[in-house]
Amino acid sequence: MKGNWLLPEQLADILPAEARRIEELRRVMLDLYRTYGYELVAPPLVEYIDSLLSGAGTDLNLRTCKLVDQASGRTLGVRADMTPQVARIDAHLLNRSGVGRFCYCGSVFHARPVGLLDRRELLQLGAEIYGHAGLEADLEILRLVMESMRLANVGTMRLDLSHPGVVGAILATDPGAAAQADEIHRLLSEKNVPALLALAGQGDAPRNETLAALRTLAMLYGTPADVLAEARQTLPPLLGIARALDDLQALVQALPDIDISLDLADVGGYGYYSGVMFSLYAEGWHDALVRGGRYDNIGAAFGRARPATGFSFDLRKVAAGLPPARRSGAISAPWSEDPALALRMQELRRQGEIVIQLLPGHVHDQEEFFFDRELVRQDGAWVLRQL
Amino acid sequence: MKGNWLLPEQLADILPAEARRIEELRRVMLDLYRTYGYELVAPPLVEYIDSLLSGAGTDLNLRTCKLVDQASGRTLGVRADMTPQVARIDAHLLNRSGVGRFCYCGSVFHARPVGLLDRRELLQLGAEIYGHAGLEADLEILRLVMESMRLANVGTMRLDLSHPGVVGAILATDPGAAAQADEIHRLLSEKNVPALLALAGQGDAPRNETLAALRTLAMLYGTPADVLAEARQTLPPLLGIARALDDLQALVQALPDIDISLDLADVGGYGYYSGVMFSLYAEGWHDALVRGGRYDNIGAAFGRARPATGFSFDLRKVAAGLPPARRSGAISAPWSEDPALALRMQELRRQGEIVIQLLPGHVHDQEEFFFDRELVRQDGAWVLRQL
Repeated sequence: MKGNWLLPEQLADILPAEARRIEELRRVMLDLYRTYGYELVAPPLVEYIDSLLSGAGTDLNLRTCKLVDQASGRTLGVRADMTPQVARIDAHLLNRSGVGRFCYCGSVFHARPVGLLDRRELLQLGAEIYGHAGLEADLEILRLVMESMRLANVGTMRLDLSHPGVVGAILATDPGAAAQADEIHRLLSEKNVPALLALAGQGDAPRNETLAALRTLAMLYGTPADVLAEARQTLPPLLGIARALDDLQALVQALPDIDISLDLADVGGYGYYSGVMFSLYAEGWHDALVRGGRYDNIGAAFGRARPATGFSFDLRKVAAGLPPARRSGAISAPWSEDPALALRMQELRRQGEIVIQLLPGHVHDQEEFFFDRELVRQDGAWVLRQL
Repeated sequence: MKGNWLLPEQLADILPAEARRIEELRRVMLDLYRTYGYELVAPPLVEYIDSLLSGAGTDLNLRTCKLVDQASGRTLGVRADMTPQVARIDAHLLNRSGVGRFCYCGSVFHARPVGLLDRRELLQLGAEIYGHAGLEADLEILRLVMESMRLANVGTMRLDLSHPGVVGAILATDPGAAAQADEIHRLLSEKNVPALLALAGQGDAPRNETLAALRTLAMLYGTPADVLAEARQTLPPLLGIARALDDLQALVQALPDIDISLDLADVGGYGYYSGVMFSLYAEGWHDALVRGGRYDNIGAAFGRARPATGFSFDLRKVAAGLPPARRSGAISAPWSEDPALALRMQELRRQGEIVIQLLPGHVHDQEEFFFDRELVRQDGAWVLRQL
């Protein structure tokens, strides 16, 4: 039985000091979303694989662990992303016609980690708005992201905006390119121009003018004003592109006090985004802390497409940036069956004090608490004494 | 794609009103355990199956969903019970010599439901004491169970106590019976005396005096004073039995204000209990609300057996007994890019008010909130008006 205490790679226990910090941040976030009118929902850990992957790309499929349902014989998946689940709830269970705002917090599991250094279990916390196609919803979501990260003590931040409508409009003009959309998205995200150009001339290959546009697109990142101006000059004059650029421009203008960068080629992720998408980067983090965007089509798989936009982040990752949870002072009490002691302990605990009763014959080595007072019996009463 | 919105049997989404109630109860419970000095830990959702099943019986094995780890090729399990995980954390990660108190709250998944009407995903919330073999730890755990359920508004309660040492001592005297321990435990839990007696005379069968003792045992349930007196008179004079009865008697005496019932034949569960075990029943619930007990041997699988006792319950099930969460009054605000409105909304939200900004052109039909005030512009300022 040796080695039973080892965990699989890229999975780890959360020990007391970290667990406390995560719990505190979880409450701060859920309370914040509540003050914005977001309602909490909790979809199940496991569902039919078809539902879990609705509207999503192959990326999410590869990341989702499958199991066989003993009851139905059908394939189930352990959720790797809660966004499609919340879309399902909005589309069917609640069946509202107006605007719906939801938030959620739960564990998701990845069959393979997203990045080499990433964990395979994330504590996904997110918020979504359904039912409003206008940029107002995107704006509220972006402001909520910024406020969330400020509350999480995240320092210097940069918001990267993108829009899959730009590359989408280019691919829509060229069936040869559209057939290789997944590969093109990947190469664009990596800004791998040589590999993009190498797609030319193979059977039903993308046309040369498409590849030229994609090559231009791969270089369109940086300061919003520059990128927008250059995009309008150098990209093909397609309606989809003009609309995407207008959306980005409107958001940039509405968020004057945020450091924004545009990256028109970055359309990675789980493949369900249909409008403005974003990643939030912060000093000290090698990867994006928060990701999100608009995904108006995802509900279609559930028979009811609704405009939708939202964000999520790994609570554990974000909490790791907080200063370590401070140890709390606690009161020690001897073991005694005196009912007066039980009453006194109850009274102190109801005031929020931590009272730890010593079990006979042991030292107590808590990690989170230190004894700064003790309960002692004096003249027939239990009184607090400083240590 | 039709039917994608359906969930597998015995799995269900948690919608806003219920989610809020669960979240509130979760905080009450974790805060309570903190005032007793329990430290929060969070083991992973998925681990190697050997670790997940350490020290547990076939019951837990059947209930645990398996997957193959893409990284190692080894079998992983989705946890069906967090108790062995917390024992692993105590045994290895923290490696403390003194007393450790831990609490946890997380989702567990059952390949098949425990009871016909049970859900397959539970929100398991529990607390454990490690490192103290004396009854003081059992007593603290039992008091914490009672206080938890009082805080959860659970009405008339009855605590069922048992001790696997009684049947264990009987089986230890008879290899033919010990070989069929799992089956005998099951029949005893069902009080199926005819099937117990039918075990006689088949090859390496239990001896007749063993079956007679088991038959007596199956009838030993009811009021503590009666059961203890009868057990001492009618069960074989074995040291293990005497010790188990002494433990039960001491606990009954230390908990005079609780309605206690003994059931010496009920030793079901996941098979890891080694000492006093209990189930809490309450009016209006067809099954036990809380289960727990002493399981001193479970850490042995991790190379470090430590005395341990604890309890857990399904937070979702217990929360279902609370009155429905009340809808909260909220403030509506129009959509406007006026920075003064943004400031006013932020101020109100920081005071804990729920402020919902109306997205242009929609009705807002929240389930959890109703508008009782609105922000309106009056003489150049944003003021609150009653609705």
